[in-house]
Amino acid sequence: MRKEILFSPGPTNVPADILLEGAKRTIHHRTGEFAGILKTLTAPLKKVFGTDGDVFILTSSGTGAMEAAVANFVSRDDEVLVLNIGAFGKRWVNILKIHGLNPEVIEYPWGKTFNLNEVREKIKNKTYKAVFCQLSETSTGTVNDIKSLGEILPEETLLIVDAVSGLLSDEFQMDNWKVDVCASGSQKGFMMPPGLAFIAVKKDLEYLKNPSSFYFSLDSAKKSLNKGQTPWTPAVNLLYQLVKSLKMIEEEGTDNIMKRHKQLAKITRFAVKEMGLELFSSSPSNGVTAVKVPDGIDGTLMLENISNKYGVRFANGQGEYKGKIFRVAHMGYVNVPDVLMALSCLWLGLNEAGAKIDSSAIAKTLDSIKNAAI
Amino acid sequence: MRKEILFSPGPTNVPADILLEGAKRTIHHRTGEFAGILKTLTAPLKKVFGTDGDVFILTSSGTGAMEAAVANFVSRDDEVLVLNIGAFGKRWVNILKIHGLNPEVIEYPWGKTFNLNEVREKIKNKTYKAVFCQLSETSTGTVNDIKSLGEILPEETLLIVDAVSGLLSDEFQMDNWKVDVCASGSQKGFMMPPGLAFIAVKKDLEYLKNPSSFYFSLDSAKKSLNKGQTPWTPAVNLLYQLVKSLKMIEEEGTDNIMKRHKQLAKITRFAVKEMGLELFSSSPSNGVTAVKVPDGIDGTLMLENISNKYGVRFANGQGEYKGKIFRVAHMGYVNVPDVLMALSCLWLGLNEAGAKIDSSAIAKTLDSIKNAAI
Repeated sequence: MRKEILFSPGPTNVPADILLEGAKRTIHHRTGEFAGILKTLTAPLKKVFGTDGDVFILTSSGTGAMEAAVANFVSRDDEVLVLNIGAFGKRWVNILKIHGLNPEVIEYPWGKTFNLNEVREKIKNKTYKAVFCQLSETSTGTVNDIKSLGEILPEETLLIVDAVSGLLSDEFQMDNWKVDVCASGSQKGFMMPPGLAFIAVKKDLEYLKNPSSFYFSLDSAKKSLNKGQTPWTPAVNLLYQLVKSLKMIEEEGTDNIMKRHKQLAKITRFAVKEMGLELFSSSPSNGVTAVKVPDGIDGTLMLENISNKYGVRFANGQGEYKGKIFRVAHMGYVNVPDVLMALSCLWLGLNEAGAKIDSSAIAKTLDSIKNAAI
Repeated sequence: MRKEILFSPGPTNVPADILLEGAKRTIHHRTGEFAGILKTLTAPLKKVFGTDGDVFILTSSGTGAMEAAVANFVSRDDEVLVLNIGAFGKRWVNILKIHGLNPEVIEYPWGKTFNLNEVREKIKNKTYKAVFCQLSETSTGTVNDIKSLGEILPEETLLIVDAVSGLLSDEFQMDNWKVDVCASGSQKGFMMPPGLAFIAVKKDLEYLKNPSSFYFSLDSAKKSLNKGQTPWTPAVNLLYQLVKSLKMIEEEGTDNIMKRHKQLAKITRFAVKEMGLELFSSSPSNGVTAVKVPDGIDGTLMLENISNKYGVRFANGQGEYKGKIFRVAHMGYVNVPDVLMALSCLWLGLNEAGAKIDSSAIAKTLDSIKNAAI
């Protein structure tokens, strides 16, 4: 029997109640019925991002929302800065270059967060149009301190944050933290299938009149939104699922969602350390825990075995870290029992790969949960 | 966040792929399209039961299939024998009485299987029209030895088996084991929602011309089946799900399904014993493990806490065993990671209820899995 549970940082597990919404009849999007659905999404989406501004729903992956952020807020001659701490930091650079910009980049070793003092130095002598960074860098399981970054940037510099994997697992308050533009996607904290992306824009922030993308033009999106529409054909059935997703998020409450992810991350980190393994990140996120593969073990083979044998899918390292780190995501529709399952299967998989790890690591994890120590 | 996983012996967890089939358009049942669907179900259903005879699909719970077995094969003046080892054995008695029969009953204490020698004695001096029993008695997690029972019954005595919870988790071979009639339901080994029941009838076995039920008349059912129909309006969308269920069963293979349940039962029994708890049944089934609640613990409160806190739903004892035993079902869409989750949460719940159980019980269970000892 093939039964798969995802502990990958996107796609994540989708509740059956959300899946089933996708099976409803597809309505036409140039109707009042559609406008009604779109309208119900406005308030809860703003709440999730923590903004009074607009949140646009795009039919794309999270990368599309990143491209929208670039295409609508910076132009080819703008001076921009990227704080690159991993694969998705590099993605900002690549998108900016495609759009004709020549970004300055402060690059950090994978597993590290940015250094605020270095950023302070950098912005002393130059006023950037925008700074691009990640809330959570998915490739390394690292969370950045966006709040502090927002505090040091001058008013005229836009803070543009990729919160594709971070939103709804690591704390994020768009307006309070002085974030101007934020990109996210449906297949992480929203507990949805992939296919939708979000771009949140600070209230009254102006879009470029000549954006460098047609599909991702927020000027078009805004004009349509005012009429209860989207400029192009939207993924209607995914929007039904988003309605349900936002209801579930509302029911649990964002504070509780944050608490849950904090606990899941704590349990995972505790168990991993008890197993004698080393965390990869010096600033671990609450959505995904990156762990160094022990010496002498082929991480790729180990993950394949765990997936084939137990149907438990963790994520491999990306780029040069493939086989050298693995990532246990605990974002979205995940609870303590799920994480206990994941850790038991991780323990089995590590031992099956040749590591000699005592089962007391799992026992101690259970003890700590029992004693409410984690 | 409320996330529930069922370790109850029906309903059981339904895979999303099966759930989604239920969202397809409802077709009319007096059509060739419907007949085509019904036809595709014939061969795989026979295979699951291990019979060359007909398998009728009823829109009812498993109890409906039990009533169909009574209504179509025995009449008010027949001498029948019930081997009653628990709540569902008692159900045979109640159904038979409603239909005007006065069954003889050999009753066994809950947790025990029937005694073949006693049955042998009983059938020595009297020829019964039928013997009624369970493959797996869900209330006590006990499997009966149907094969041996089939061997000792005379040709003229019908062997009528309730395999509602047993089918697809405990071994069952209808024709090879000389079973004449078998009842089952959709919400256990078939990994489906409740709503469908099955009654399998040995090839060429005749139905009563005047069955004591209108709705459950197999004479009507057989006439309809020959035309690719059901006599009354069927639960069409559940039939879509049954098509998918049977495909999944075919893909895994019944031998593998049996092996899987055997392993899940072994792991559960091993862990429970390591926790110092006692199995309730002397002949434990592979679909559900019944366990005595330790002294001084209120089983009902403990199960409520586990359900509320972890979303893990075990089953309480029935009747006078409520609060005194609990049942961990591992039937249907369940794998090793699921059982590890269940056992970890059981351990937490037991300790939270005041039991002092060392976490080494879970560690030793993991060790045994690692060493392929269970």
